[in-house]
Amino acid sequence: MKAAIIGAGRIGRVHIANISAGVPEMEIKIVADPYMDKEGEAFIKGYGVPVITKDVEGIFADSEVEAVLICSSTDTHTDYILKAAAAGKHIFCEKPVDHDVHRVRLALDAVKKAGVKMQIGFVRRFDHNHRAVYDAVREGKIGTPHILRISSRDPEPPTIEYVRSSGGIFYDMMIHDFDMIRFLAGCEVTEVYANGAVLIDPAIGAEGDVDTAIVTLTFENGAIGVIDNSRQAVYGYDQRLEVFGSEGAVRNENDIPNTAVISRADCTFFGTPYQIMWDRYTQAFIDEMRAFAHAVINDEVPQVTDLDGLYPVLMAAAASRSLKELRPVKITEVE
Amino acid sequence: MKAAIIGAGRIGRVHIANISAGVPEMEIKIVADPYMDKEGEAFIKGYGVPVITKDVEGIFADSEVEAVLICSSTDTHTDYILKAAAAGKHIFCEKPVDHDVHRVRLALDAVKKAGVKMQIGFVRRFDHNHRAVYDAVREGKIGTPHILRISSRDPEPPTIEYVRSSGGIFYDMMIHDFDMIRFLAGCEVTEVYANGAVLIDPAIGAEGDVDTAIVTLTFENGAIGVIDNSRQAVYGYDQRLEVFGSEGAVRNENDIPNTAVISRADCTFFGTPYQIMWDRYTQAFIDEMRAFAHAVINDEVPQVTDLDGLYPVLMAAAASRSLKELRPVKITEVE
Amino acid sequence: MKAAIIGAGRIGRVHIANISAGVPEMEIKIVADPYMDKEGEAFIKGYGVPVITKDVEGIFADSEVEAVLICSSTDTHTDYILKAAAAGKHIFCEKPVDHDVHRVRLALDAVKKAGVKMQIGFVRRFDHNHRAVYDAVREGKIGTPHILRISSRDPEPPTIEYVRSSGGIFYDMMIHDFDMIRFLAGCEVTEVYANGAVLIDPAIGAEGDVDTAIVTLTFENGAIGVIDNSRQAVYGYDQRLEVFGSEGAVRNENDIPNTAVISRADCTFFGTPYQIMWDRYTQAFIDEMRAFAHAVINDEVPQVTDLDGLYPVLMAAAASRSLKELRPVKITEVE
Amino acid sequence: MKAAIIGAGRIGRVHIANISAGVPEMEIKIVADPYMDKEGEAFIKGYGVPVITKDVEGIFADSEVEAVLICSSTDTHTDYILKAAAAGKHIFCEKPVDHDVHRVRLALDAVKKAGVKMQIGFVRRFDHNHRAVYDAVREGKIGTPHILRISSRDPEPPTIEYVRSSGGIFYDMMIHDFDMIRFLAGCEVTEVYANGAVLIDPAIGAEGDVDTAIVTLTFENGAIGVIDNSRQAVYGYDQRLEVFGSEGAVRNENDIPNTAVISRADCTFFGTPYQIMWDRYTQAFIDEMRAFAHAVINDEVPQVTDLDGLYPVLMAAAASRSLKELRPVKITEVE
Repeated sequence: MKAAIIGAGRIGRVHIANISAGVPEMEIKIVADPYMDKEGEAFIKGYGVPVITKDVEGIFADSEVEAVLICSSTDTHTDYILKAAAAGKHIFCEKPVDHDVHRVRLALDAVKKAGVKMQIGFVRRFDHNHRAVYDAVREGKIGTPHILRISSRDPEPPTIEYVRSSGGIFYDMMIHDFDMIRFLAGCEVTEVYANGAVLIDPAIGAEGDVDTAIVTLTFENGAIGVIDNSRQAVYGYDQRLEVFGSEGAVRNENDIPNTAVISRADCTFFGTPYQIMWDRYTQAFIDEMRAFAHAVINDEVPQVTDLDGLYPVLMAAAASRSLKELRPVKITEVE
Repeated sequence: MKAAIIGAGRIGRVHIANISAGVPEMEIKIVADPYMDKEGEAFIKGYGVPVITKDVEGIFADSEVEAVLICSSTDTHTDYILKAAAAGKHIFCEKPVDHDVHRVRLALDAVKKAGVKMQIGFVRRFDHNHRAVYDAVREGKIGTPHILRISSRDPEPPTIEYVRSSGGIFYDMMIHDFDMIRFLAGCEVTEVYANGAVLIDPAIGAEGDVDTAIVTLTFENGAIGVIDNSRQAVYGYDQRLEVFGSEGAVRNENDIPNTAVISRADCTFFGTPYQIMWDRYTQAFIDEMRAFAHAVINDEVPQVTDLDGLYPVLMAAAASRSLKELRPVKITEVE
Repeated sequence: MKAAIIGAGRIGRVHIANISAGVPEMEIKIVADPYMDKEGEAFIKGYGVPVITKDVEGIFADSEVEAVLICSSTDTHTDYILKAAAAGKHIFCEKPVDHDVHRVRLALDAVKKAGVKMQIGFVRRFDHNHRAVYDAVREGKIGTPHILRISSRDPEPPTIEYVRSSGGIFYDMMIHDFDMIRFLAGCEVTEVYANGAVLIDPAIGAEGDVDTAIVTLTFENGAIGVIDNSRQAVYGYDQRLEVFGSEGAVRNENDIPNTAVISRADCTFFGTPYQIMWDRYTQAFIDEMRAFAHAVINDEVPQVTDLDGLYPVLMAAAASRSLKELRPVKITEVE
Repeated sequence: MKAAIIGAGRIGRVHIANISAGVPEMEIKIVADPYMDKEGEAFIKGYGVPVITKDVEGIFADSEVEAVLICSSTDTHTDYILKAAAAGKHIFCEKPVDHDVHRVRLALDAVKKAGVKMQIGFVRRFDHNHRAVYDAVREGKIGTPHILRISSRDPEPPTIEYVRSSGGIFYDMMIHDFDMIRFLAGCEVTEVYANGAVLIDPAIGAEGDVDTAIVTLTFENGAIGVIDNSRQAVYGYDQRLEVFGSEGAVRNENDIPNTAVISRADCTFFGTPYQIMWDRYTQAFIDEMRAFAHAVINDEVPQVTDLDGLYPVLMAAAASRSLKELRPVKITEVE
């Protein structure tokens, strides 16, 4: 299966490296980025990609290209989805699809009409530790879910430029947790309430965003949930899930690179968590791409569908409004 | 130090047994309960208590009695506090002081005017695992607190009669967590938002209460927090704390009776948590009483002061109103 | 049940404090020590012991004394056992009974003839974590034991004076593990091989002892085992068991004072283990004494019998010879 | 770098799959096996290997082949090493080099004379958990090693045919631990004592082998160590290391597939360990091959040298003799 990548930034390069190392089903024919520079070109050449170009439009015209991986900035996603769908290409799109719920729907309609497949880049669904929690819930090991809880903390805040364009913590960071919590619950969220604070960097507050947030959620099936986020965990990535239900509970511990424990006179300690997202989720990124390739090649529904591109954006929109209006907000209010 | 206990129910008996076994500083002279029956009398006699009676009033008249331990039902607490204070007795009162904020203030004023000491029965402050988290926070090991989180789940719901008279989950169960979270934060809460559901027993819902709840909180110092409660964790008591801050995080694991791990073909498992509160907190109950005796004997401020009887009740009142009015409620609204 | 204690040293005082705090079944009438000094007298007085004396012989003549707790130095144990047995007193004797197998047998014969009960001070059998491993084995959870393993390390070496009189590491330290491993195996050891080294303090080597040792064992039932000992674990007490069998394995983790985990930029750590044996085994010391009182009062076989005083000494004798003769030694060789 | 593989059995195929997936530095040109069958041919063809043949000799004549990976049965290793060395090919050889110490020396001499590189297949040195223990020791975190301990248990015994030809538990299983323990100690072993038993399958005993073994070791630097092995851990692979030293201790926990913990009414459990060696050590196998490729390409000393092929065989020989002669055996006795 021949694919083209739009966007040669950080996430684009991660996919190039991972596909090259671990996704034999997929071959990258083109990497296109209007802002392609010498350094990016050299990096990509190292992986043997035949076409490296500033011309994105050429992708849609190339009949050999079966799938397009959209790894450009969020504000360009919808346009590229529309073009890829019109050209009959299958689509992998990084999260979130768009900040504007209206435009997300536009993209989804186009995908539906074109009959192409679209998978959204919620990579954590493919993490082995998160998957183990999901599997336990689906296999009924904890009965009916009552309380769902996610703690999700990044090692350091993004640049202020990124915060300015990303749509804020609910769209660029908690969006992963919004997807994960509904994935775990097995149903949609009906209402959210957001509590947030600026405790790490006042410059983030100056952009109208928060850097620390707790969001409570109500699910269609009656369960309730909570997500906490921080932009800066000095000890590294910290991502843990818990589902508590009528027959028990399942949770996972944060992932650490090894199981060694050192005991010394002053303390007994184990390894610090991962500091770099790509280290933590290397295998998950590979598995995500293999799943996409598998769905396209075997004409199956992707594991993360286009609708999974819509609901987390609705949740982010509701959380943003909740924070502004200091009240719980129903999902129906932002649809 | 000679003490009298009012109330020969479950919690009263726990204190009698623990004081007998592990609090040499205190001697129980009287146990009084208007509903004292033969069985209770026999139980208490076994611990060598000299006076076992239905006459509560006699306690206040007994000049030998230095301290009164109020272990009767919540609706009687304030009256007994007023009488004990008037009689110049030091007071240990089980939580919560009263469901009515007004009456709590009445009790506190009486205590203040009488110049006696009052310690509130927030026993979890004396638990060694919870204390270790508290100590780490106070010693600055995690910097400034940003996010505080408590998960607190009981093995089984109380009787419907209890739910009917207890004031509901916020007053009889989460009250412990309300105290703990402000103890950890080192400041008071300014606002709460409560999300609740009836997922375990419809009869609890019929009483206007919930059995599953998540409450988010905002603290004076800018931190935010969340508490989740369930009336029924089938695997036993589950009480864990986490404080995340500018320099790191501290959390504790749930307490289990031993460190043995068994690996078999089907699974690798460790011990189930405690099923009985008295087993889990035995040492904490003893330490709580020793702390009270110590404060009285050495004329020091108790580790849990009378004001600690007020704020958790305010938080419970705000949470109850939040659940009813479906909006965040400021503590100032219920003062 | 009235008891007398011989020996007012460290272990004697531990028993006085624990009996006072947690063993209501037992009352200490006399503490006798030929070397009793002012400081010891004051300490013991604090626990309300009526008779504090240098006269040990008086104990055997006192008809009120039902039981004698022998907490003096090892070389005096057998004499006191003979006298106590002759006087018809029940006996609790600290480990080891004697370094000389011959004299151990002498003591056991006297106890048998007198028809009194004797419990040996193998306190670790009463530790909740060790007991959980034992219970799992006895309940058949791991099938037939194949490999038994004990790691046992002290925080710091004893004084050279102590090493000189104690009989060495196999008699004063590994004796606990010798008892525990046969307790776990449910049968006796037939052969041992000892490997030892002087790695901590050359002065220990100068006394003919080692400070680091590994002993392998063969059991009657075909299982094999290994014990490792170090006189100095800089991080504190470290005592762990593992039994591996046909249906699985059970092991325990070292005991630590609490379950708190702190994550900081440099490392994630949990509490250091106990540094003081009395802190680690407080409850076990109490339970040991309650078990002894229970056996005497109810005329039952003690949980640690007089034979448990013999076999670990045989194992220590065999290990000592193995180390000297650089070959495996059968227990029958030292009987 | 072009390589040829001798042996298309289990371990040969594992290397083919791993090199294909994760070792871009190496290209497999030939896979040769005198017993190559249709099924093996089909499997290898799936990885795009150009030459699949029964003719091993052709490898040594092929000037394009730079390195030979010897994955055939142990009795053929030395012959192939001699031939590969004579042909100037670099060598990767599975462990053990040979059961016969004499022949190991023969092989090593040939390699030395030819000036080619030889890496031995001690894959566990590349495991991330084992490496973390090694790193802690080398970085001085635990001071000078005093006690080294390895527990190593396989999920199920090999076939009796395998046991018959493998040289027994010390040559086919504990050989890994012999290498690991000297790797951790940073020096060689001078003496071993072996204690073994037949507890799992009498047929293993009928072959003169044991299925359960404990070996104690003395190191040049004065440290002492112990390895325990079982052919059958019903719960899956169990491989743990511990190094205890003058400044502390480091150990690792057994590796499990994920960090999820499930709490139910009956027990709290986490995932079973790996059941299949290839699953557990997938990344280690890849890293081992990359290290070999790296050493050849950059003309550096391999991370596992040819001498590492000698010493573990000496230890196995000494352990075998110890078991037979029921006495500790010095390494110098078997050299």
